[in-house]
Amino acid sequence: MPARNAKDCSPSDQRAAALKDAHLVQTKRGYRQKRGQFFVEGVRNYVRAVDTGFVLEHVFYSEKLLINPLARKLVRQGRRDGVPTLAVSPEEFRTLSITKRASGVAALVRQRWMPLRDVLPARHMCWIVLEQVQSAGNFGTLIRSSSAAGGAGFILIGPNVDPYAPAVIRAAMGSVFQQIFVRTHKEALQDWIAQTKSPVIGATPAARDDLHGFVCPERAPLLVLGEERKGLSKLQKGLCNHFVRIPMLEGTESLNLGVAGSLLLYEVHRQRYGAF
Amino acid sequence: MPARNAKDCSPSDQRAAALKDAHLVQTKRGYRQKRGQFFVEGVRNYVRAVDTGFVLEHVFYSEKLLINPLARKLVRQGRRDGVPTLAVSPEEFRTLSITKRASGVAALVRQRWMPLRDVLPARHMCWIVLEQVQSAGNFGTLIRSSSAAGGAGFILIGPNVDPYAPAVIRAAMGSVFQQIFVRTHKEALQDWIAQTKSPVIGATPAARDDLHGFVCPERAPLLVLGEERKGLSKLQKGLCNHFVRIPMLEGTESLNLGVAGSLLLYEVHRQRYGAF
Repeated sequence: MPARNAKDCSPSDQRAAALKDAHLVQTKRGYRQKRGQFFVEGVRNYVRAVDTGFVLEHVFYSEKLLINPLARKLVRQGRRDGVPTLAVSPEEFRTLSITKRASGVAALVRQRWMPLRDVLPARHMCWIVLEQVQSAGNFGTLIRSSSAAGGAGFILIGPNVDPYAPAVIRAAMGSVFQQIFVRTHKEALQDWIAQTKSPVIGATPAARDDLHGFVCPERAPLLVLGEERKGLSKLQKGLCNHFVRIPMLEGTESLNLGVAGSLLLYEVHRQRYGAF
Repeated sequence: MPARNAKDCSPSDQRAAALKDAHLVQTKRGYRQKRGQFFVEGVRNYVRAVDTGFVLEHVFYSEKLLINPLARKLVRQGRRDGVPTLAVSPEEFRTLSITKRASGVAALVRQRWMPLRDVLPARHMCWIVLEQVQSAGNFGTLIRSSSAAGGAGFILIGPNVDPYAPAVIRAAMGSVFQQIFVRTHKEALQDWIAQTKSPVIGATPAARDDLHGFVCPERAPLLVLGEERKGLSKLQKGLCNHFVRIPMLEGTESLNLGVAGSLLLYEVHRQRYGAF
């Protein structure tokens, strides 16, 4: 039974359909994309979603499991405001939850994307540009660091990287709600870079300029990071007008992608704001 | 049957005992510690272990699985030099391996520890001091970053943190062989700090000094990092003679521990070497 027809069915059918829907959004990338939703669980994520004005399209909570007073209050308030809200048993909740400790609150949230044409470079410290990332943990770490350092968000080239995958959201620890996500393709991004005259800085061990020696342009730079093993793609290199390397002792392995990106973010921060 | 008696047994018993031994070193912290060994697998780790002069106490390889020519050569050479070497079937190898792709080479390696009294502060860029870390991935990332940035290694207070756990070695991606590990306790470390007049810098959001504003002392500093959630312990705080914070946007979550430590390491690097 497709979830869209849930309203034509009996209450218990509707209930089963809603739970199935949440499970599919959580586990299937294609379904997540088609529905334009993502799944979050846990008090922190739920409260952040509310506080940052994300649209909650379905809330699931367990009266028994959810003990946090603020989250309980927000669930009641949401229901009064017309958010579809389903009270579930602890057992039902655990079928939804992928974390060890069942917090008792989860939600289907509308994905938020910004069109590239709405991005105003003057408004932000910097952006990170990704085309491919292997590890959800690394991407989550980058989201967390960009949020902490004051980066605007992520410009994603092509379909590969999904900021709304549950493993990414988990690793981002609540900071996914504080970042802007843009999805675009090569030509559109090239045009936008030409129009805005944005500095585009690629991180690669092959660069001549050292991260700490490179003077960061004042306009919000795009920081381009490659995939963990392969580094910058040809497409990504083609976008860059500067390259920097992170100094590394000879004979040592490359840095973790989350670490490399964070070092870039904080170098932009250091040059822009100095110490405070 | 205890593995120590393997020599009194038949060849097939010896073989089973050796495999069991490797499995126990890999999976049991207590056994690993008692034997003073650790388990590595994969071509990169094996070659690094040989290249950095670690003592291989048992090598396991599968003729069928191991295709890397250098690793094959080193296995043959090791056997000629008297390293106990066991040819295993692909199936036997897979019972040992915890990675998806079975590389065909693994080894029990002697752990290497440096006594605190042998640490000469003038010789190194900096050390990281840990007492507790939740995530093996975070510890591995710190090892990788310290190795890349030129940090000497890790001073571990108490028994909690094990650099030779398989998950740590995996996350460190070959860099565990390039770092020095020291295990000590509070009093010994306090005495050593007093004697060597080492600067001890704790990372905490509560610090007044900003990471980028803080002028790093010239003597090799000890960088003290707390546990992921709880931050610096009372014991750790008591060791510090400086505190720094990493600048973070208000209302954002804390940084990943691996990222926070890497930012400290690279700030020491930047102040010491500037750009090159």
